[in-house]
Amino acid sequence: MSTQAKATTSTGVAAASKHELNRFVLAESELPTAWYNVQADLPELPAPYLDAEGNPARPEQLAAIFPPDLIEQEMTTQRYIDIPGAVIDVLRTYRPGPLTRARMFEKALGLPGNVHIYYKYEGINASGSHKANTAIPQAYYNKKAGITKLTTETGAGQWGSALSMAGSQLGLDIEVFMVGVSYDQKPYRRIFMESFGAKIHRSPTRLTHAGRAVLEETPETLGSLAIAISEAVEIAAMSPDTNYSLGSVLNHVLLHQTIIGQEAIAQMELAEDEPDVVIGCCGGGSNFGGIAFPYYHRRLEGKTKARLLAVEPKACPSLTRGEYRYDFGDEAKMTPQMMMYTLGHDFVPAGIHAGGLRYHGDSPLVSKLYNLGEIEAVSVHQTDCFEAALAFGRAEALLPAPESSHAIAAAVAEARAAAEAGEKKTILFNLTGHGFLDLAAYDAYNKGTLQDYDFSAGAQAG
Amino acid sequence: MSTQAKATTSTGVAAASKHELNRFVLAESELPTAWYNVQADLPELPAPYLDAEGNPARPEQLAAIFPPDLIEQEMTTQRYIDIPGAVIDVLRTYRPGPLTRARMFEKALGLPGNVHIYYKYEGINASGSHKANTAIPQAYYNKKAGITKLTTETGAGQWGSALSMAGSQLGLDIEVFMVGVSYDQKPYRRIFMESFGAKIHRSPTRLTHAGRAVLEETPETLGSLAIAISEAVEIAAMSPDTNYSLGSVLNHVLLHQTIIGQEAIAQMELAEDEPDVVIGCCGGGSNFGGIAFPYYHRRLEGKTKARLLAVEPKACPSLTRGEYRYDFGDEAKMTPQMMMYTLGHDFVPAGIHAGGLRYHGDSPLVSKLYNLGEIEAVSVHQTDCFEAALAFGRAEALLPAPESSHAIAAAVAEARAAAEAGEKKTILFNLTGHGFLDLAAYDAYNKGTLQDYDFSAGAQAG
Repeated sequence: MSTQAKATTSTGVAAASKHELNRFVLAESELPTAWYNVQADLPELPAPYLDAEGNPARPEQLAAIFPPDLIEQEMTTQRYIDIPGAVIDVLRTYRPGPLTRARMFEKALGLPGNVHIYYKYEGINASGSHKANTAIPQAYYNKKAGITKLTTETGAGQWGSALSMAGSQLGLDIEVFMVGVSYDQKPYRRIFMESFGAKIHRSPTRLTHAGRAVLEETPETLGSLAIAISEAVEIAAMSPDTNYSLGSVLNHVLLHQTIIGQEAIAQMELAEDEPDVVIGCCGGGSNFGGIAFPYYHRRLEGKTKARLLAVEPKACPSLTRGEYRYDFGDEAKMTPQMMMYTLGHDFVPAGIHAGGLRYHGDSPLVSKLYNLGEIEAVSVHQTDCFEAALAFGRAEALLPAPESSHAIAAAVAEARAAAEAGEKKTILFNLTGHGFLDLAAYDAYNKGTLQDYDFSAGAQAG
Repeated sequence: MSTQAKATTSTGVAAASKHELNRFVLAESELPTAWYNVQADLPELPAPYLDAEGNPARPEQLAAIFPPDLIEQEMTTQRYIDIPGAVIDVLRTYRPGPLTRARMFEKALGLPGNVHIYYKYEGINASGSHKANTAIPQAYYNKKAGITKLTTETGAGQWGSALSMAGSQLGLDIEVFMVGVSYDQKPYRRIFMESFGAKIHRSPTRLTHAGRAVLEETPETLGSLAIAISEAVEIAAMSPDTNYSLGSVLNHVLLHQTIIGQEAIAQMELAEDEPDVVIGCCGGGSNFGGIAFPYYHRRLEGKTKARLLAVEPKACPSLTRGEYRYDFGDEAKMTPQMMMYTLGHDFVPAGIHAGGLRYHGDSPLVSKLYNLGEIEAVSVHQTDCFEAALAFGRAEALLPAPESSHAIAAAVAEARAAAEAGEKKTILFNLTGHGFLDLAAYDAYNKGTLQDYDFSAGAQAG
């Protein structure tokens, strides 16, 4: 019996530990204490929301479904909004989040030493994505306003999961209208939400006028996000104790996500590196705004020249192929009209697996900055995304969500372009969530049955 | 339009930020650089393994399926074994791991201020459990020995997932024999492993003598862990380029897990708190040994009086109801005989959801310490575990694995006992993994269809 493990020496350990830090960690006390509001720094204010009559919407028109604090946050031009202490207490259950230099991925891609890839990871919290960052303050402000229940819709399930989790943490009832076909196909998402105490309905239901109308006309309908939104809003508008909650697009949602970019800036400073390009996938725009807006501010301060790159699916390319005009946020025209890049509120994109990116329009704030030429956009096919996601995941020991994989694909393209041109480049992307509940999509990719779709594969619902 | 968000003030933020730290974070450079080997500190050496003839097994008898470094680690009494730099590089993709004061959970339980609960979380890495901590060094040492492929078995899927991930990170082929019934019921686990490049077989297969023999006798068999082990070992023993890899029980596996306890000690020092009890769920014993052994050493140093508490399912209570004697590690008697607490190698526990705890015996090292009275053990029912897991998960924004939930249930019992007795108590438990791929079990609990089983509900396979 040997008493020596000769194969392992202190030297090997020291060699690995000396220079190659991967993760840049913030102390809990370094969690941002205020959100950054990009509205303070826009060269011109975004166009106002329009009500049903085509007049600028007034705050009180939103009060039937949103609490006063969120309506204020929707419209304020104050640059920093303090995060309430009670919200920080809950955010701290998973924040500050990790920022990592993807050295194993760089090696797998065969990149030269002057091309660096970093990623910020938002999949740590139980609900599994960045959506928790806004679910928690939305639950808090509603509770503060005396609301006891929030309604919402969910398709892919990340948003419903986040709001269910926030409700259980802050003591609010959550009622989720889940698109019928998703309810049938994604039982794990339903179980997750139920496990966190939420009530889940297969939409359409007989609980609402909107749901009953649809069921009378088409009893076998699989449902749609538009119908689910209509049901959730109707329930919220009916009761003074109940409000509605939205997971992307609106100004206050993007505001809440800016802690991502603020943390990233502090962590990239720890890494003594500065991104040349900051990348986020882009559906409604909340994670992209969350990581990009603080860098936009940093650019105004003259501290960075980072390009800001939104990545959308080729099946739903609202920035790269849409029009910049007033449009409704939902197919049923229940929301105010917003000035945004849109494929038309009745556009139904092809059934790609990144359900969170299948939205016809873009956040008014992201749209405004894109229109001003302050941010860039690119679109990618889903097979390229899954290929990039698996190469990344195998190297870095992660399983990315299909949405997040769009940012990875763009990061790979940026890295390869720099390597070919012999240029130094530092790339930062936002990895919005994990893919544990999206494994069916990976199965399709592994089996080679995944299809790519272009914009033209979509349809107009109307 | 307001430019002030009056509801949120700096005061609230400061009040929350001042005293109530939750997470105790180690810098990447503080990752332990050596494993702690409890064999150095045992009052007497564990009884040797016995070969098929009943003689003490010699190292060379293990060489057909294990590489030299791991055989040395199995037998050495050196107190610290340096972790190779290349292993540290990979461990750093997810370590050091978080240690958290579960303040929200304490509040939900209504505990007095002098009862503290901390948890160490091992579910961050993509494979989702502590098993990665040994999969990575096992892959490394095998690759170093010129091995190109590892075989293993998996039931619940955590171990197969961990080895698949480690294989993809270190460049080894992985072949997993997955118990037939699990292969059918847990497609997400299969897809996960395939996504990380592993080859998955539904066991029994026609690739091995063992598999063919079973299929000829019972063509419709659902398989078993015992058969899957036999197939994996047979394939490994046949080829000089292929070895076999085991995820628990053996000394070198527990050695690799001691980074959990070492990190926890450093993090509890940051928290300026010392556990009165350290809790881990216990199947084969690797996560329990991982968190408990470094505390055993700390007790020998006189720095702590922490009790060490192993938690097992009432359906499979090997420590609390088993005998301490020589027994085989597998039903097919292919392993050496080990001195351990056992319910008999042919004991088939009832079908609880914590598949990772359905093992008839316990690690020889854990068994030795239990026999010496140095550690304690308790058994719990699964409905109590799921109840505790959901109370914890809702408060702390996590979804625990069914295995981990056993540690939570014991932590709750310890906390309540202290609160009732009016005693000060600090509790630390190991949360071994996430439950995203176990949501069917939560569904059963939510629906009230989950059953409890006692030891007597198990059977002898004969």
